[in-house]
Amino acid sequence: MQAEAGHLLPGALDPVGGFRDRFLKACWGEETDCTPVWFMRQAGRYLPEYRALRESWSLLEICRNPELAAVATLQPLRRADLDAAILFSDLTLPLLGMGVSLEVREEVGPVVDPPLRSPGDLKRLGSLDLEGIGFLAEAIRLLRGELQVPLIGFAGAPFTLASYMVEGVPSRDFARTRSLLLQDPGTWEGLMERLAEAVLEFLLFQIKAGVQAVQLFDTWAGVLSARDYAERVLPHLERIVRGLDGAGVPRILFATGSGHLLPLLGSLGAEVVSVDWRVPLDAAGRELGGRVRALQGNLDPAALAGPPEVAEERTLEVLRSAAELPGHVFNTGHGLLPWTPPENVSRVVELVHARTAGRRR
Amino acid sequence: MQAEAGHLLPGALDPVGGFRDRFLKACWGEETDCTPVWFMRQAGRYLPEYRALRESWSLLEICRNPELAAVATLQPLRRADLDAAILFSDLTLPLLGMGVSLEVREEVGPVVDPPLRSPGDLKRLGSLDLEGIGFLAEAIRLLRGELQVPLIGFAGAPFTLASYMVEGVPSRDFARTRSLLLQDPGTWEGLMERLAEAVLEFLLFQIKAGVQAVQLFDTWAGVLSARDYAERVLPHLERIVRGLDGAGVPRILFATGSGHLLPLLGSLGAEVVSVDWRVPLDAAGRELGGRVRALQGNLDPAALAGPPEVAEERTLEVLRSAAELPGHVFNTGHGLLPWTPPENVSRVVELVHARTAGRRR
Repeated sequence: MQAEAGHLLPGALDPVGGFRDRFLKACWGEETDCTPVWFMRQAGRYLPEYRALRESWSLLEICRNPELAAVATLQPLRRADLDAAILFSDLTLPLLGMGVSLEVREEVGPVVDPPLRSPGDLKRLGSLDLEGIGFLAEAIRLLRGELQVPLIGFAGAPFTLASYMVEGVPSRDFARTRSLLLQDPGTWEGLMERLAEAVLEFLLFQIKAGVQAVQLFDTWAGVLSARDYAERVLPHLERIVRGLDGAGVPRILFATGSGHLLPLLGSLGAEVVSVDWRVPLDAAGRELGGRVRALQGNLDPAALAGPPEVAEERTLEVLRSAAELPGHVFNTGHGLLPWTPPENVSRVVELVHARTAGRRR
Repeated sequence: MQAEAGHLLPGALDPVGGFRDRFLKACWGEETDCTPVWFMRQAGRYLPEYRALRESWSLLEICRNPELAAVATLQPLRRADLDAAILFSDLTLPLLGMGVSLEVREEVGPVVDPPLRSPGDLKRLGSLDLEGIGFLAEAIRLLRGELQVPLIGFAGAPFTLASYMVEGVPSRDFARTRSLLLQDPGTWEGLMERLAEAVLEFLLFQIKAGVQAVQLFDTWAGVLSARDYAERVLPHLERIVRGLDGAGVPRILFATGSGHLLPLLGSLGAEVVSVDWRVPLDAAGRELGGRVRALQGNLDPAALAGPPEVAEERTLEVLRSAAELPGHVFNTGHGLLPWTPPENVSRVVELVHARTAGRRR
């Protein structure tokens, strides 16, 4: 199968080193030779070769074409010594798989028109059509044949997917979503149940196809109070995390602006919680109370996009704050910004590896 | 002066009760007969009479016309037994007063075109033209003649004003602003200095004209880490707070998503910190460490917009979490939502007054 994609994937990745598992080991809280590094949106618009792809294809066209998705996934690994690949995809894919009419607009985000606002709108949500997402399995198969590092699969978490559906257009405070949650608990629960079921199936599908870790993006969960998150969101997340119990892959939970939710996120049984740039990792570790195997994060993507000396200084700050953690996967606190210089990325990867080499975890 | 505006302001406000100062007393941490209540955006689109105004005038036209601004300011006080009025205005007014070309789009927010991105763009920021904002003084004069409760003036804080200028269009993560702050500290400092100077002058102008308290809206400050906020924002906020030292009016600081910034916000010497809905008031009080006279907040605006029983139950929850605070001004955690039923607002005001009457603060 390597041959099939060979014309699109010139040059082997790490042809002599063999499989490098330090990312998976860190997720399980095991000792590693150095701290592993990957970045959210490491495949994307900051890379000229990705922008070149985008001249011919839309984001969703790339997601849906296994060879293109594989190419996009591999692009950052040709430039930087990253310890994991993340399947090129979009966190709204489960919605598309459920028949939601959705468009991902560049620099805007997902647009759902008309938005979901009333109980009747739930009818627009079908169950996940696994045949319709066969392209993912094919992309995963192609990538596993090429990669010498673990491949991460992912999905948006139910709250974040619901927020896209309810708001319709990108929002700063997700007020309509928060209103629906309080105003119409029946519709909210119906929506969350369907989404949780679809997200679980979606992740199991990716695991069966070969991904070696999964990340749940509850990107906008931080707009909720701990009470609402605990009462109206957590049970659905828990169902997904529990549903992956026997799957044998580490589970990573991610949310931004979620300092006040960390004790809840730590309670679910996921191996890793990914922390944004607002809260230092040592403080986050205390909030999580030792209930995770590792923390992931949390360089400010704006620092990584900044002058090299700022990127380096902030990287060292993250490493210092991670010194006492059970395990650490170095990452940014959110996705890479489109104006990130690719050189900064490879530089920071090297710096993390060099500074943590031989440090016993 | 009451006569002048009389035709626009039918019916006196609280004609027999005299001036009601419980809001100011609470801000200073003094004992009150019950907990005072006002709401951010208590004048606005949830009121049919405000929407009627907006059929004929734009938001900025209303702000700039003293009689219309007075009418809009008073509208909510005719419906609910509120303990303070807030001048109908927009937090971007200082930018307009500095010559920035800015448009406030309904349901979108401030749009600055072209945005500020480079050192040369600083030239577009003049100093505050006090003659150009004379309409504010006239609106304040009209209102002081009518009101039997304190009048609050306000402005956007420098970071939030800067974020509007740098982003150009509303943003969820303010990544360009965070990037500029790290990438070009010189431009950032120049921008913040000019904004801090203008905001201070703007607030002093309102105080001289008669407002009896001021609120600084650092609405989007929560996107920054504590380190960046402390290093690149706080000194400018401090300059404003210190510059108001002798003015004799309480100073309220507000920011959303700022749980991790509370110790910093508490360090400035402002009398009141206004907390959003994410963090319970008792926890926020502990973070502030007893360095403020009162906390303001923090009912979720989505709860106030919800079914009456949800609004009431959440109101009681806020009162419970405020029981041990030094002082408490009841408010929402952010502005009222356009779909808030006006009946909920008056109901919650009554509930807060009734439940806290006679409780010694």
